[in-house]
Amino acid sequence: MAESNPTALVVSAHSADFVWRAGGAIALHAAKGYDVTVVCLSYGERGESAKLWKNEGCTLEHVKTERRKEAENAAAALGVHDIQFFDIGDYPLGITEDAKYKLVDTMRKVAPQFILSHSLDDPYNTDHPATTKMTLECRMIAQAWGHNPGEKILGAPQLYLFEPHQTEQCGWKPDVLLDITSVWDKKYAAIQCMQGQEHLWEYYTRVGKQRGVQAKRNSGGQAGGKPVEYGEGYQSIFPRMVGEL
Amino acid sequence: MAESNPTALVVSAHSADFVWRAGGAIALHAAKGYDVTVVCLSYGERGESAKLWKNEGCTLEHVKTERRKEAENAAAALGVHDIQFFDIGDYPLGITEDAKYKLVDTMRKVAPQFILSHSLDDPYNTDHPATTKMTLECRMIAQAWGHNPGEKILGAPQLYLFEPHQTEQCGWKPDVLLDITSVWDKKYAAIQCMQGQEHLWEYYTRVGKQRGVQAKRNSGGQAGGKPVEYGEGYQSIFPRMVGEL
Amino acid sequence: MAESNPTALVVSAHSADFVWRAGGAIALHAAKGYDVTVVCLSYGERGESAKLWKNEGCTLEHVKTERRKEAENAAAALGVHDIQFFDIGDYPLGITEDAKYKLVDTMRKVAPQFILSHSLDDPYNTDHPATTKMTLECRMIAQAWGHNPGEKILGAPQLYLFEPHQTEQCGWKPDVLLDITSVWDKKYAAIQCMQGQEHLWEYYTRVGKQRGVQAKRNSGGQAGGKPVEYGEGYQSIFPRMVGEL
Amino acid sequence: MAESNPTALVVSAHSADFVWRAGGAIALHAAKGYDVTVVCLSYGERGESAKLWKNEGCTLEHVKTERRKEAENAAAALGVHDIQFFDIGDYPLGITEDAKYKLVDTMRKVAPQFILSHSLDDPYNTDHPATTKMTLECRMIAQAWGHNPGEKILGAPQLYLFEPHQTEQCGWKPDVLLDITSVWDKKYAAIQCMQGQEHLWEYYTRVGKQRGVQAKRNSGGQAGGKPVEYGEGYQSIFPRMVGEL
Amino acid sequence: MAESNPTALVVSAHSADFVWRAGGAIALHAAKGYDVTVVCLSYGERGESAKLWKNEGCTLEHVKTERRKEAENAAAALGVHDIQFFDIGDYPLGITEDAKYKLVDTMRKVAPQFILSHSLDDPYNTDHPATTKMTLECRMIAQAWGHNPGEKILGAPQLYLFEPHQTEQCGWKPDVLLDITSVWDKKYAAIQCMQGQEHLWEYYTRVGKQRGVQAKRNSGGQAGGKPVEYGEGYQSIFPRMVGEL
Amino acid sequence: MAESNPTALVVSAHSADFVWRAGGAIALHAAKGYDVTVVCLSYGERGESAKLWKNEGCTLEHVKTERRKEAENAAAALGVHDIQFFDIGDYPLGITEDAKYKLVDTMRKVAPQFILSHSLDDPYNTDHPATTKMTLECRMIAQAWGHNPGEKILGAPQLYLFEPHQTEQCGWKPDVLLDITSVWDKKYAAIQCMQGQEHLWEYYTRVGKQRGVQAKRNSGGQAGGKPVEYGEGYQSIFPRMVGEL
Repeated sequence: MAESNPTALVVSAHSADFVWRAGGAIALHAAKGYDVTVVCLSYGERGESAKLWKNEGCTLEHVKTERRKEAENAAAALGVHDIQFFDIGDYPLGITEDAKYKLVDTMRKVAPQFILSHSLDDPYNTDHPATTKMTLECRMIAQAWGHNPGEKILGAPQLYLFEPHQTEQCGWKPDVLLDITSVWDKKYAAIQCMQGQEHLWEYYTRVGKQRGVQAKRNSGGQAGGKPVEYGEGYQSIFPRMVGEL
Repeated sequence: MAESNPTALVVSAHSADFVWRAGGAIALHAAKGYDVTVVCLSYGERGESAKLWKNEGCTLEHVKTERRKEAENAAAALGVHDIQFFDIGDYPLGITEDAKYKLVDTMRKVAPQFILSHSLDDPYNTDHPATTKMTLECRMIAQAWGHNPGEKILGAPQLYLFEPHQTEQCGWKPDVLLDITSVWDKKYAAIQCMQGQEHLWEYYTRVGKQRGVQAKRNSGGQAGGKPVEYGEGYQSIFPRMVGEL
Repeated sequence: MAESNPTALVVSAHSADFVWRAGGAIALHAAKGYDVTVVCLSYGERGESAKLWKNEGCTLEHVKTERRKEAENAAAALGVHDIQFFDIGDYPLGITEDAKYKLVDTMRKVAPQFILSHSLDDPYNTDHPATTKMTLECRMIAQAWGHNPGEKILGAPQLYLFEPHQTEQCGWKPDVLLDITSVWDKKYAAIQCMQGQEHLWEYYTRVGKQRGVQAKRNSGGQAGGKPVEYGEGYQSIFPRMVGEL
Repeated sequence: MAESNPTALVVSAHSADFVWRAGGAIALHAAKGYDVTVVCLSYGERGESAKLWKNEGCTLEHVKTERRKEAENAAAALGVHDIQFFDIGDYPLGITEDAKYKLVDTMRKVAPQFILSHSLDDPYNTDHPATTKMTLECRMIAQAWGHNPGEKILGAPQLYLFEPHQTEQCGWKPDVLLDITSVWDKKYAAIQCMQGQEHLWEYYTRVGKQRGVQAKRNSGGQAGGKPVEYGEGYQSIFPRMVGEL
Repeated sequence: MAESNPTALVVSAHSADFVWRAGGAIALHAAKGYDVTVVCLSYGERGESAKLWKNEGCTLEHVKTERRKEAENAAAALGVHDIQFFDIGDYPLGITEDAKYKLVDTMRKVAPQFILSHSLDDPYNTDHPATTKMTLECRMIAQAWGHNPGEKILGAPQLYLFEPHQTEQCGWKPDVLLDITSVWDKKYAAIQCMQGQEHLWEYYTRVGKQRGVQAKRNSGGQAGGKPVEYGEGYQSIFPRMVGEL
Repeated sequence: MAESNPTALVVSAHSADFVWRAGGAIALHAAKGYDVTVVCLSYGERGESAKLWKNEGCTLEHVKTERRKEAENAAAALGVHDIQFFDIGDYPLGITEDAKYKLVDTMRKVAPQFILSHSLDDPYNTDHPATTKMTLECRMIAQAWGHNPGEKILGAPQLYLFEPHQTEQCGWKPDVLLDITSVWDKKYAAIQCMQGQEHLWEYYTRVGKQRGVQAKRNSGGQAGGKPVEYGEGYQSIFPRMVGEL
């Protein structure tokens, strides 16, 4: 039954972030049978749609419609189970109590094995750390027995931070390198759905290759290592409980 | 055949460190069929044997003999495959080129899946970070094709840092919590071999319990979590390559 | 006269935090003649009362009443001079301008020699750093001559951060170890008032013992040291002015 | 024409901050032909006007008027092109959406080559980091094509953080030392406009001299170096693009 | 006259590091008339020559000869003024007092405007931070009037740290992005001289492109920016003295 | 009897460091009856005696003699109990096993209540952190029962780091501000003994005044505070055990 599939949740500030930064993880886990839910807090309609705005007569509604289509197409390419658009506005994000409780609801409903979101810091884009802060706050609320008593509370899913645009400026340090070679074609297909940001296609293809080389090296050094071609990096927030090192 | 067992290597500054700090991981992996090799760079004969030195007429040789016996007993209790005493002196450690190449040899011979050693910093005990620094240097040498050409080079084993005495003062932050409940009796038996440091027995028992509570919490939060009673914390140095988050 | 007693202020996110984390400091200073005021921003009614919520028909009011009773009992056991419940809601804390000004008023009225609050960071519980941030902001307001002109302004009390649940994950580093041996019985009596969180009693007893061992060690090393059995750790925010090292 | 002058923007939490911390940079660039705009978010009327408040019958309006006069005089002494008072209140700053959009407007209108603001952290004064956070957020909004479409968007001006009162407590580390020797007389004249904070005049004169010595040393070491008498330190947030090292 | 050219110094742990990491800066400054001196502390003969060692009958001398040839060819392609091979051995570097004084001599003779070397940390390769530590120590000695009195002492050249292989793991954060578009062909020609490490050619080409995109973005954001195609990142150690922001 | 006086130990890389950086603490504690021992590892003869070297015919011996005289005069002015010159050479310090054991002997003989030394980092002067590293190592050895058995071992004295020349570049953060107003005249007299470094006299006078202002502020804020005119800042390495906050 569908309800017994493992699940994952992605919280994306703008509607394209989940593609560049976590598209491989999404496609990979979807292929493994996970139901992956993506929450886009905004469409990035004001701040990440320069190409559309350069057209005469462009309106906010038009941008949102176009961005939504792109995101839905990308989600389909990645095998996303459910994509939700909170439409809270961007640059800056309009984070309210309501938006928080809506995210808490989603967290409880999805009951994810893990959550993906942005880096803790980003001087270029304050929407990104604001999203992560909100995600941590909502994770806490979703764990509270006294919030909407009677609902099944959230467990303790790991929060993995995906890769920001300029990693070193954001204090982001990956401790996990995920092999996404087997789903690279899907990630690249999703990337190509982002018609408005074509200048980033090759940038994030190169990111994938660099993380692939690093994954290979960290799995075997000069002695060889797993034949990884494309990778994605993640930074974990919480320690993980293991039964073997 | 024994040579096909998985392997692990522990690099311990003084001959009791591996017991307090990594005894659970050793016993657990031994129980899982790993051949675990422990290298004691010194016996802790000068700096960690106060009780013996308080006896009239005590000599360095006597302390070393006693400490070696204790360590061998503890190793037996934990199921250690091989324990090596480099005897390079302590407080401070007498780290030489020879000692380094000896450790490189051991690394290559053992070909460990992972290595355990001390925290990167410790203002109370400079032998601890010196050991870790040496371990990282030797890992690099052991990976070099041009060092003793013809030998099989080392792969890229993770280096896990085990818990120092006062964690916050040493800048140590665990990202892995290992469930050692099933082997706690072995760890406590090994701890009891350390006759000269009885004041630490209950200290490290409490450490085990605290890490157990934390492991439980990180595996399930207020929703429950795995029933862990005893744990050990580790900090990873390198990112890990994974095929699933 | 009572008004000439030295004073201290504790700002606690939820109504049990002051017990686990600062109960020793409170009892110790109360015993020394300090008037200690405790502010509980919330009862922890939603997020830290799982046991109560597991009972059929439990309501928010019931939880608050129970938690208040527990906190008042604990305060009595510790010798607290005054305990105030701001009741601003938890998970997340409902921090408003009004709540801030109320805390400012308390700061001015109490005129504490020092303030105790939470760690600067806590990925598990965002209410904790939110409390510390609020405390720093209110300390600043309370020092302003132009806020409620005519009132006596606050001096420059130290802010000590008490111990979070998983110290290393919160970036908390104690620079002060307080000997609470003489009042341990009071702290443990207060701990036992927390009927809803019995699973934490032994956890924080062990914390007390570990900090005791560390306090002993830092006061004398292998040469001996003060006979401390129970301790509490604190991290100072501000440099302290001294007349002797 | 005036519109072709290079430009700079200073965002000051309280109306005297720009004088102590950035007066040299302002006077220097004004002398070089820059149009420098200063935004004072507040007058520091509540928190930084102790001297005025000690007078009987003092009112908020009176303080604001006095502080405004002082700031305008200082701005004139420094050669400021435009000074704007947002008057959003201080201790704490009353940062609203409106205030943010007003700052965005100013950023777009000024189109500065660089922006100056406060340190990222300040435990003594939470208004300071709040200003910097707001500045980074507004910089992002001002760059968004979809904010007030049709307006010319902001480029990517560097954000330089000027010197806080107790640098080490604020985690502030200067990577730029600006030679302000040629305009020191102007900065000191501006400092003297701050009648209410005379206790700081010599403090910031000494700061200027220390940074001067450091600038000299960093430009030539023991071999000599440029003859700098007065300096100001700045910490850059973004990497700078260069054509030569 | 040659002696009046501006000068720069590169200190490279192994004989290929200067190519991957600083080839652009070298070629660019050579093209601008700088005399660039490169010091290779070792040939990387043991640790960075895997391909050669895989050949039957390979000897250390053979590897060194081949590596030297490659480095000399690369240096020629970049327009290096002088390349020096200290031949102190690698994995680990054989840093001695003699080697230090030799580097001090070179520093004084070259009198560089700036120095380039490795990151401060690198858990994969301890030769890299050892080189930087040595460089800082030698910079200090070269500034001492009492070292070889009578010689002209070194000024205060900036130390720029070039890019390590896995930047985030090395704690390296670039604050300078150098546009190397105009000399990319030279850098790539130099890269192709490294016959033994062909697996890195495309890796460092992608690094160049990513830094180019970032340089463009930091010079103009969404508003445009300088048309940079290839870049190199550097982290400065010392504050820089400037006369204009 | 002299042996019952409290004691303190200062470990100074070069023979003038203890004056600029810790002269106030020395004079203050001497005045309080402490026997303060100063160890100068070197005379700073090569690296910190530029003025002497600029004289024709200057020799190393001459510089050492002059520097020793200056240091002895300064020590006398401060009321130092004992000053020891290890004469191990500077730029770089010639730290050997012998030098370490000599320092261990001094530590045991002095049995200090606290130790003063340099910052943990200093990119300008690698002798400074090398001294601190050596001091921490020797503190550990001096605590070992097995080092020279029979001697009285060292307790657990605090290590305070005194102020480096450019604090923010050295990652130094003071948590203690010492009021040295009452002995400023002695510190300034000692400073004036440093004939070769007259350019630093006023620099360190200003440092004293700034730390004085900060000490005042931290002891009372805008409410007043202790009337401190001159101060010195220190960073503690170890947590301190206290019986009252």
